[in-house]
Amino acid sequence: MPENKKCMVIFQPSGRRGYIDQGKTIKEASVALGVDIEGVCSEKAVCGKCKVRVEKGAFEKYGIESHRGNISPMGATERKFVNLRQEQHGYRLACQAEVMGDIVVFVPEMSRMGKQIVRKAAREIDIALKPAVRKYFLELPRASLSDTLGDWERLTDELNRKYKLKNLTIDYQALLGLQNAVRQGDWKVTVSVWQDKEVIKVEPGFVEKGYGLAVDVGTTTVAGYLCDLPNGKLVATASMMNPQVIYGEDVMSRICYTMTNSEGLEQLNQAIIDGLNGIVEDVATQAGIKRQDILDMTIVGNTCMHHIFLNIDPQYIGKAPFPPALHHSLDIKARDWGLKIAPEAEKVEKGSYPPHEEPETTEIRGIGIKIAPGAYVHVLPIEAGFVGADNVGVLIAEAPYNQDSIELIIDIGTNGELILGNRQRLISASCATGPAFEGAEIRYGMRAAPGAIEKIAIDKETKEVRFRVIDQEGWNTELKEVGAKGICGSGIIDVVPQLFLAGIIDRTGRFSKDLKSPRYRETDGEPEFVIAWANETSIGQDIVICQEDIRNIQLAKGAMYAGAKILMRTLGVDKLDKVILAGAFGSYIDKESAAMLGLFPDCDPTNLYSVGNAAGDGARIALLNVDKRKEADEMARKVEYIELTLAPDFDKVFAKAMWLPHMNDGFPHLERLLPQKK
Amino acid sequence: MPENKKCMVIFQPSGRRGYIDQGKTIKEASVALGVDIEGVCSEKAVCGKCKVRVEKGAFEKYGIESHRGNISPMGATERKFVNLRQEQHGYRLACQAEVMGDIVVFVPEMSRMGKQIVRKAAREIDIALKPAVRKYFLELPRASLSDTLGDWERLTDELNRKYKLKNLTIDYQALLGLQNAVRQGDWKVTVSVWQDKEVIKVEPGFVEKGYGLAVDVGTTTVAGYLCDLPNGKLVATASMMNPQVIYGEDVMSRICYTMTNSEGLEQLNQAIIDGLNGIVEDVATQAGIKRQDILDMTIVGNTCMHHIFLNIDPQYIGKAPFPPALHHSLDIKARDWGLKIAPEAEKVEKGSYPPHEEPETTEIRGIGIKIAPGAYVHVLPIEAGFVGADNVGVLIAEAPYNQDSIELIIDIGTNGELILGNRQRLISASCATGPAFEGAEIRYGMRAAPGAIEKIAIDKETKEVRFRVIDQEGWNTELKEVGAKGICGSGIIDVVPQLFLAGIIDRTGRFSKDLKSPRYRETDGEPEFVIAWANETSIGQDIVICQEDIRNIQLAKGAMYAGAKILMRTLGVDKLDKVILAGAFGSYIDKESAAMLGLFPDCDPTNLYSVGNAAGDGARIALLNVDKRKEADEMARKVEYIELTLAPDFDKVFAKAMWLPHMNDGFPHLERLLPQKK
Repeated sequence: MPENKKCMVIFQPSGRRGYIDQGKTIKEASVALGVDIEGVCSEKAVCGKCKVRVEKGAFEKYGIESHRGNISPMGATERKFVNLRQEQHGYRLACQAEVMGDIVVFVPEMSRMGKQIVRKAAREIDIALKPAVRKYFLELPRASLSDTLGDWERLTDELNRKYKLKNLTIDYQALLGLQNAVRQGDWKVTVSVWQDKEVIKVEPGFVEKGYGLAVDVGTTTVAGYLCDLPNGKLVATASMMNPQVIYGEDVMSRICYTMTNSEGLEQLNQAIIDGLNGIVEDVATQAGIKRQDILDMTIVGNTCMHHIFLNIDPQYIGKAPFPPALHHSLDIKARDWGLKIAPEAEKVEKGSYPPHEEPETTEIRGIGIKIAPGAYVHVLPIEAGFVGADNVGVLIAEAPYNQDSIELIIDIGTNGELILGNRQRLISASCATGPAFEGAEIRYGMRAAPGAIEKIAIDKETKEVRFRVIDQEGWNTELKEVGAKGICGSGIIDVVPQLFLAGIIDRTGRFSKDLKSPRYRETDGEPEFVIAWANETSIGQDIVICQEDIRNIQLAKGAMYAGAKILMRTLGVDKLDKVILAGAFGSYIDKESAAMLGLFPDCDPTNLYSVGNAAGDGARIALLNVDKRKEADEMARKVEYIELTLAPDFDKVFAKAMWLPHMNDGFPHLERLLPQKK
Repeated sequence: MPENKKCMVIFQPSGRRGYIDQGKTIKEASVALGVDIEGVCSEKAVCGKCKVRVEKGAFEKYGIESHRGNISPMGATERKFVNLRQEQHGYRLACQAEVMGDIVVFVPEMSRMGKQIVRKAAREIDIALKPAVRKYFLELPRASLSDTLGDWERLTDELNRKYKLKNLTIDYQALLGLQNAVRQGDWKVTVSVWQDKEVIKVEPGFVEKGYGLAVDVGTTTVAGYLCDLPNGKLVATASMMNPQVIYGEDVMSRICYTMTNSEGLEQLNQAIIDGLNGIVEDVATQAGIKRQDILDMTIVGNTCMHHIFLNIDPQYIGKAPFPPALHHSLDIKARDWGLKIAPEAEKVEKGSYPPHEEPETTEIRGIGIKIAPGAYVHVLPIEAGFVGADNVGVLIAEAPYNQDSIELIIDIGTNGELILGNRQRLISASCATGPAFEGAEIRYGMRAAPGAIEKIAIDKETKEVRFRVIDQEGWNTELKEVGAKGICGSGIIDVVPQLFLAGIIDRTGRFSKDLKSPRYRETDGEPEFVIAWANETSIGQDIVICQEDIRNIQLAKGAMYAGAKILMRTLGVDKLDKVILAGAFGSYIDKESAAMLGLFPDCDPTNLYSVGNAAGDGARIALLNVDKRKEADEMARKVEYIELTLAPDFDKVFAKAMWLPHMNDGFPHLERLLPQKK
């Protein structure tokens, strides 16, 4: 009997991979590799919830070729759940499809067990209410043979008489619904007016409620905040993995994808439009409203996300001198988003400048963003090629331009963005941190979802590890069932300084040679440290941190630190009055850990703030106050962008920045914690 | 052998009908009935040009049911020219399909022989040039690592520096093409700016030319005028039958169609959008330009056409108190025209008020108007429920609001529209003339196309008829081959006064009882008068005017005359200083004939003007001068609409108006021509 053949199985978007015995189902492989796939029927092909997509093509990064022929053929039971179109796209039921060779399997959002918890949660923000869309109730004089005025003129006369609104226009789609709204409301209507300029919706009768949606499109996570426009209250939040993740984990790989695939931009654009509609559906369902009750929307994202969600070719922001297509904010009708007009453009070879040919409007097709059809989506401005609308969101949320003290704002996402300065001068930079803080490129890294280790403490003497898991009350040591699945961002920020302070790694990040602990071991010649024993997990294997993980975390933190140092030098300051940590999981980060990791230069811990998703806050602020939209445009142009890599000693600064902090090395505020320089 | 079965064959849109022997081809039937169908292969199924559509369903007006089974099955030769989709819609080759039973056959524009000649021809208009779209050439500073400004900001900075333009926005589609245009033009671009507000197109390098299209959507005829925007010159004209004609010949029947067919409005809207794209294609081809070189467009039409081309439900303008959805002008992106967003609306039963439900934006699909995708289409305002944007076109073209003399402006289309007054006061009215003047409802009426009799003179003594045919030099009596096919509008205006002056009909329109002429005869008990003998035609049969034709012409002219009388009474004037005849074929009308027909009250013939398609002129004026767009909005609201049918003695006035003029009856200026009252 031949030895059982092993097949490489790689799960996306998590990146978890390993060798699996031929003949195992994808579901079995997922369990073995710690990937959660939904399913409520105990693999009986009854619930159809474990749908996954088997990818096709070469995955050079992993050195494998994924063939759909490397999966057992589809049976009749399975086919009941997979329609023809899905089959063509490689969809299978994980509990039925058997692994026959090397494959890459994508687990779509809907099939992932344990929805991501909203780490992009919203904090309370205090903002003067001045929304772009306001509602007005009107009683119109009835048309008669002696008064045959048109419906629209009847309406504008009344808006002028009662509310002093002048020179209004009407959205084309709103116009198409005007006559019926007027008659169904028996000549009483509620009119939604955008910026006191344009009627975007007419509803019959008196309708008090109106909603707005603020969205932060992160490279990895998309978060949406539904607000009640008249009172500013947060009504619902939703988040999801950015559906573009399957095309590349970071911005450069996505730009590259659009350049090497003729329909790449379109695919990425459609993916995010679909994602935005998913967010819309989600918040509307939570709030018990209709999608079309959402009358306004604001959106932020880094420059690459910004260009792609606008369907603007991102190739020029991917190569020097990185100029964006535009900086200024935009107001684009929700229904225009993702509309395909230019089939001609598809024929153009990417990489070179496509010949300039106005699209042949043979057919226009798409779905738009499914909120009120007349509504606008306000896109916040961007600062520079690498400092995007998300950072502008942070900017208006934190408003350092109103401060005298020197602030450093760190926005931690898949890219790290920095703002430094005060009301005199503001400078910004972008740091290529990579996605380590989001759990990617870390062997047991994961999203912030139930089962994720979010907090880690290591005893300096015993080297024993305590940790907390999302959705579990108490530390692992206090629980019967721990059920850890991996380590998420805040745990990742904790683990390196904890290892360092416990003497397990040195300040260069290397494991100590003389370490004695059952948790420390070498596997295939690679040193690793056990954070959670297999019996504390739900994945049946030890959760470890290996040398490569530590290196990736150091690279990420070093990029941030070096960036801050160069900005400080540029601004001519040698100390920070205040450090603000922003980012999707910003408010979950242990500030002390971040300081000890050396994510930023020394600062008094009492002046260290975690503000969570400030980019999302900025989007909400712009949603609720139109003056802040103007402020965003002004401030985005005021901030000076500094290209870090142009600093002549960048490499040197960066190399040094990868080391962990030492008190003698300019961290007086960490005195009580940090070891003395040897 | 059984007698040959006769089948009723009705051709649309001409309405020609007759009994045809079973087994004849549709082409043979068309020849017999005087309908021209294209074809260059002598019925050998080689050219494929004679494609017609066999209709399905009941045609109550004619008392027949048209079955596609009443046509011989399609053979292999024919199938080469008819694809599956066309077959499903009933398309056949006229030269192959044989008539087996009663049928209604629609001859599409492309299959009609002898394209309609542009009777909506354009006259020279003298207008200060101030187009809405202007082009600006720019040389942009090149992006570099020390100047990473976005493309858009680079462009607006230069537009501001060089041309003092400020606060510009950019069309979303233009934005998508911005980066490539800039790079392909090596940082030199030509920018098209709408209303000094919005960039609608960016082209690489220096591009001088830019075009605009003015369109007049008549109930029966659509005419387009392509102008060179920088110099205002007319570059090309095109006209076609309004493709909506198959759904109803006049506005009321089309409104009715939208109310009785769940997808009626959508069908009519798509038909006219397709038609507009046909006009665009036609003028672009003539001018040797690309459709996307057309940067601006203006459009006029009566209120019903206006509502339908905008996709606004016309039901409310079809019933008292006839309020339109709006009066004001609109600027709507070309690409938004005809886009379908609201599949939900289809489910609504027409006639009642549909429940107000914002459309579910499940999919957006359509073709738009295929000019520059960023361009706007400017829709001129309308005056009232029955006095539309076409009349506003007439208004700004003739500008009676700048005159002291009392002018009557008559716009003859499928509907007749009147404006009376001067700078003090202007009143307007709409007259239900019906389509007689356009050749419909007249037995041998036809469009103004080659072969149409356009001028008729009848000798008072001999009762002999002389006539002229479009595209033929000289009178019929001077030609060897006459080749008449029917009578068009200007001939129809001629024929009744000529018959009257020759004593063939009396002033009530009845044929004289004691008439002796070989041209006068009765067929099936109906009196008729031969205008052209069969050997003078290309249709192989006599072209006659029958009693019903005369009655229809009288109804049409009477509606006009009565309207003018009531307006004069309303304004308190008893004589006209000036009469202006406008309309598609206005400039071809014999003014004297029109006066003798009694189309309008008495006026000095020296103050009688034919101005042709003034509605189209108005559209051109608005295209070339934005100030005139504002003037149109102001004047449209200034004109007072008079509902003629509300006049208590309307029926009496109308009945009297049907009579032909008599000198003693208030026509002193016709003294030398008209008979004395008996």
